[in-house]
Amino acid sequence: MERTPSHPEVSKFNLQQVLEALVDPVRRSIVTQLDTACEDIACGAFDISVSKSTATHHFKVLREAGLIRQHYVGTSRMNTLRRAEMDEALPGLLDALITPQAQGMSTSGSAGKGVA
Amino acid sequence: MERTPSHPEVSKFNLQQVLEALVDPVRRSIVTQLDTACEDIACGAFDISVSKSTATHHFKVLREAGLIRQHYVGTSRMNTLRRAEMDEALPGLLDALITPQAQGMSTSGSAGKGVA
Repeated sequence: MERTPSHPEVSKFNLQQVLEALVDPVRRSIVTQLDTACEDIACGAFDISVSKSTATHHFKVLREAGLIRQHYVGTSRMNTLRRAEMDEALPGLLDALITPQAQGMSTSGSAGKGVA
Repeated sequence: MERTPSHPEVSKFNLQQVLEALVDPVRRSIVTQLDTACEDIACGAFDISVSKSTATHHFKVLREAGLIRQHYVGTSRMNTLRRAEMDEALPGLLDALITPQAQGMSTSGSAGKGVA
């Protein structure tokens, strides 16, 4: 079984759309989990606390922004981080979001607006 | 005359809040104009096509996220990019947004959602 959804080419990547994808803490968590895992992850296997339909929406936003590539293995929709292509289009952006500093802040960030 | 608004300390910078500030193309433009100018710019001297009250809101969001520092010189509110402090808190993030690639995309980004 092979049903591959459409993915934008690198030349169509758009900073505005990428930032709108990454501004959401759940989507940013999906990206960092993929980056840490260094392997494909099935949609149902992420550590995210949202409903299945909400997760599906987040994966769609990430895919349409060019951040992830999705393909089916059997009935599982697998996700791959398009790391090299994103680094080519927007050098340094993903690196900046996975620094120890950024990761430390992410925790407080998703818990609420911590800055006065 | 000296009326300095409050600014967060570096230790209070928050990735979520910084990304929410930078996801707006007008605010991103203010940041890149400050980075390019390498000097303070008065609120009224930026090349942005929004009303004065909207601009004031954008400057407030940037200030509260820690991206800019504001101070008065006479009746002019001057803006300084907190580049070194932001680089300390979130290494590489501002660099990633001012690469030639990102700048090239910014134009199409602010014109609308260019990606299918």
